[in-house]
Amino acid sequence: MNSRPEFGKVVVFGVGLIGGSFALGLKAAAQVGEVVGFGRSLVTLTEALHLGIIDRVGANPGQEVVDADLVLIATPVGQMPEIMSRIAPYLGPQTVVTDGGSTKADVVAAAREHFGAKVGQFVPAHPIAGAENSGAAAARADLYRDKKVVLTPVSENSAHNVARVRRAWELCGAQVHELSSSEHDRVFAAVSHLPHLLSFALVHDLAVRENSELFFSFAASGFRDFTRIAASHPEMWRDICLANRVALVEELDRYRAQLDELRDALQKDDGAALEKTFDVARTARRAWAEGKAK
Amino acid sequence: MNSRPEFGKVVVFGVGLIGGSFALGLKAAAQVGEVVGFGRSLVTLTEALHLGIIDRVGANPGQEVVDADLVLIATPVGQMPEIMSRIAPYLGPQTVVTDGGSTKADVVAAAREHFGAKVGQFVPAHPIAGAENSGAAAARADLYRDKKVVLTPVSENSAHNVARVRRAWELCGAQVHELSSSEHDRVFAAVSHLPHLLSFALVHDLAVRENSELFFSFAASGFRDFTRIAASHPEMWRDICLANRVALVEELDRYRAQLDELRDALQKDDGAALEKTFDVARTARRAWAEGKAK
Repeated sequence: MNSRPEFGKVVVFGVGLIGGSFALGLKAAAQVGEVVGFGRSLVTLTEALHLGIIDRVGANPGQEVVDADLVLIATPVGQMPEIMSRIAPYLGPQTVVTDGGSTKADVVAAAREHFGAKVGQFVPAHPIAGAENSGAAAARADLYRDKKVVLTPVSENSAHNVARVRRAWELCGAQVHELSSSEHDRVFAAVSHLPHLLSFALVHDLAVRENSELFFSFAASGFRDFTRIAASHPEMWRDICLANRVALVEELDRYRAQLDELRDALQKDDGAALEKTFDVARTARRAWAEGKAK
Repeated sequence: MNSRPEFGKVVVFGVGLIGGSFALGLKAAAQVGEVVGFGRSLVTLTEALHLGIIDRVGANPGQEVVDADLVLIATPVGQMPEIMSRIAPYLGPQTVVTDGGSTKADVVAAAREHFGAKVGQFVPAHPIAGAENSGAAAARADLYRDKKVVLTPVSENSAHNVARVRRAWELCGAQVHELSSSEHDRVFAAVSHLPHLLSFALVHDLAVRENSELFFSFAASGFRDFTRIAASHPEMWRDICLANRVALVEELDRYRAQLDELRDALQKDDGAALEKTFDVARTARRAWAEGKAK
């Protein structure tokens, strides 16, 4: 390639599935000069180096970000404030920063606090791509291909910085959307965080019974699908639920009101009410699945 | 084959997926002489005849059951009382009757009412085998292979009659278990009926919002799995929920109490309580999946 890559130097904090796939995606697009990796585990960093995900292991975050074009913070959300505060003083004027966190209002609040006057250089992102595996070895150049990435720009972001971050995710193959951070958190509370909570709750409720084996022994395919997400990572989901607890409690309360209505219908033997609810749900679920299949 | 089949004449009411697969299973085992089918749809009966599921379409239920060895009532539960009352006066002393209903206490109550003194000839059954498709064309000889069938014998059943019905399901390849009808209904309220209700409720709650498209557009794989059963048949699930509403309301109340605890933990920022619940659930879900895989 003769032309200069669009991102000369990229620094990635957290070189697991999310960060590693981002680096590989940019490399596959041949639009990155050098990738420098940071992480808490030397084993993971060494693995990422050997897999060609990163070109170098960074020693000093401040020194590395000063001439970076792009920084991705792909650690668990709980570790982001510390990283933000460490790099903030050293960000060059050309550097844009993005992240890979599943919740956004809390990340934006941390960014305002720790980036301060430089918060305009931070364009928050949530890539909607997970996988059953994690870690550098699970990273793939095509993880984000045709997947959604939601940007939740802050008012201080310049159009230029938003466009740079959008471009980086698009180079990885993603379909980039924009929402406000509160819209984002409300939507994901409803379609992701609440279903996880409900699935964990169902399995927990069975598991704590004295005769739980009897119940589990007759569970079949409907149970299997409904509870697949109850095998998700407890610490990660604890953090997501707490980070988004305001929106999640609102969604949970809506849902509890819905369950109260269904309970009433059962008590009153109101088959018409049950059937109407089930029918609306089935129609919507089928339309959604057909839309996905397109 | 030189020996006489174990079941000379079998009468099946409802020749769709459940009844048709039962007939095909017995035929595959070469342990049935003749299968006579009844149903509400002439189209389905003709199809079942052409597919070799049944050998003859019955004209008069009473005439056919008098010399039958085995009768399967595989209609929706709502149609069972009428069939029971029509055949009860004509059941020969050798005839055993079973069914394919998803709920059992209500079927047993109907059987007591309509079979009267002959209720000992009725051995209730619930085959745990569904499929996305229904109808005679979906019937398969191996539908029940390695699937569970739960018998819920009544006190009037002789050991001989229970053994006959057990044998018929085993010839279809099923693993036969026995529970009381109330145990059965409690277990399936928890592991099947409640998850369906919860999944329908989640999708309905999203579908009725003004901005439902925004929510559905960001729903991903966790949502897909959790809501797969919300595409189930509304009328069928209305009937199951109503038929088992006592146990279902009990399970729903347990579950609502569980949600109240999780809501408290969220409100109190109690990460330890959330993580513990999630961890117990994950451990149990994984153990269940590993047990299934064996």
